[in-house]
Amino acid sequence: MLTSTQRERLDVVLVSPRNPLNIGAVARAMANFGFAHLSVVSAHDPHWREARSAVGAPELLANAREHATLAEAIAQDTLILGTGTLTYRKPDQPVIPLPELAPRIRQELVRNGRIALLFGSEKHGLSRDDLSYCHALVEIPTDMHQPSMNLGQAAAVCLYELTCGAFRTGSESNASQATQQLSEPAVPAAILERLANLIEQTMLAAHYSPKSMHAANRHDLRVVLRSLNLSPLDSRRIFGLFRRILNQLTAKRNT
Amino acid sequence: MLTSTQRERLDVVLVSPRNPLNIGAVARAMANFGFAHLSVVSAHDPHWREARSAVGAPELLANAREHATLAEAIAQDTLILGTGTLTYRKPDQPVIPLPELAPRIRQELVRNGRIALLFGSEKHGLSRDDLSYCHALVEIPTDMHQPSMNLGQAAAVCLYELTCGAFRTGSESNASQATQQLSEPAVPAAILERLANLIEQTMLAAHYSPKSMHAANRHDLRVVLRSLNLSPLDSRRIFGLFRRILNQLTAKRNT
Repeated sequence: MLTSTQRERLDVVLVSPRNPLNIGAVARAMANFGFAHLSVVSAHDPHWREARSAVGAPELLANAREHATLAEAIAQDTLILGTGTLTYRKPDQPVIPLPELAPRIRQELVRNGRIALLFGSEKHGLSRDDLSYCHALVEIPTDMHQPSMNLGQAAAVCLYELTCGAFRTGSESNASQATQQLSEPAVPAAILERLANLIEQTMLAAHYSPKSMHAANRHDLRVVLRSLNLSPLDSRRIFGLFRRILNQLTAKRNT
Repeated sequence: MLTSTQRERLDVVLVSPRNPLNIGAVARAMANFGFAHLSVVSAHDPHWREARSAVGAPELLANAREHATLAEAIAQDTLILGTGTLTYRKPDQPVIPLPELAPRIRQELVRNGRIALLFGSEKHGLSRDDLSYCHALVEIPTDMHQPSMNLGQAAAVCLYELTCGAFRTGSESNASQATQQLSEPAVPAAILERLANLIEQTMLAAHYSPKSMHAANRHDLRVVLRSLNLSPLDSRRIFGLFRRILNQLTAKRNT
């Protein structure tokens, strides 16, 4: 079981949710399993207000934070996990089946990280762009004939696994192994995002690729940065290097 | 993971469900995790019809079986599991926390049993009488400040655990131990019920207790019979004995 201090280090993030009943159901599941931090990104306004003011809405819904962008919502998090089914697409990120998530969660808590669990809209799930912010995609192992879960139920299942699976008997051995591999403190998403922005500017300044490729480059860059599992020192070094390169590139042009 | 043949041996039983949205949500979670057998006991009629005819209702909802009594719904099952939160009462049955359910499920499947998972009405959960048919009560470990889960979400969490937890890495050792202890085939609920009825008749014929105690006796009898983990041979022997006693008691009176 997670301690209440550990539960404090999880953010549930709903990206473009639509159905107020589903928003309420996610909030209820969070309350059921003792989680308190809900963020909503580009909520559909009337529905969001309706969910918020529903009779019996848990306190955490009233305290939910609203953000215009996903990057803003996850800025303080060090491990970003997307959720979804994989029937229709092959993601760029590593995929972790939900029942195998426990060791990764434990790792992140051991190194004092902060976890964001992302859920996409009811209709389309997380977009490819949303996923580019994720370190991994968590897959709920559903039946191939009916893979798509209701949002409130998917959240309940994930939060149950996070609560009970993270310290389930038998998974300790894997976890202690994994924890040894990852004793470095984690890098918050906001730092990775600044790093991605700086590298992207550098790519532009260096005329790295034609304009038609810029969006794809930006996407790939985000994905790669998250796959590297950078230490804070690594990220400071890369930052320093690219800032210097960018200065040189622009200075050169101005002289 | 459970095989599809093993999933065939689970009955989800809703006792007095009211909200058609919740009935639909349970059916959806069942489809998500590959379960097919839904039974409904004393459904609130208009709501049940509404759930059944809802747009997009899964096939298993159309095929759901209706029963007047719980005893009838679980007649073919050998392991009856109630679900609920324990905040407000202390049950007579053993309590299994959901994350520890896997070994018991595996046991029952190994000895070719059939499992019923019971959910009570949204408002009151399972009654004490419903629980008297259960071998054990499964508890979802929820937060003490918000213990009560939404029906559809509770079902999703339980079915996820049954699907993924039953064969999760690390729990094999406990299970093989438990399986050895229980190599006997299981006794279906219908046999236990006939046994309880026969013993009850015998108690009445023997003027065992005053009329005011009959209901309590019946309840205790059911609970005790399920706690004994009878083998088919045991149950046949007890049946034979009580039939004889009852014959003697009534014959004596007639001479």
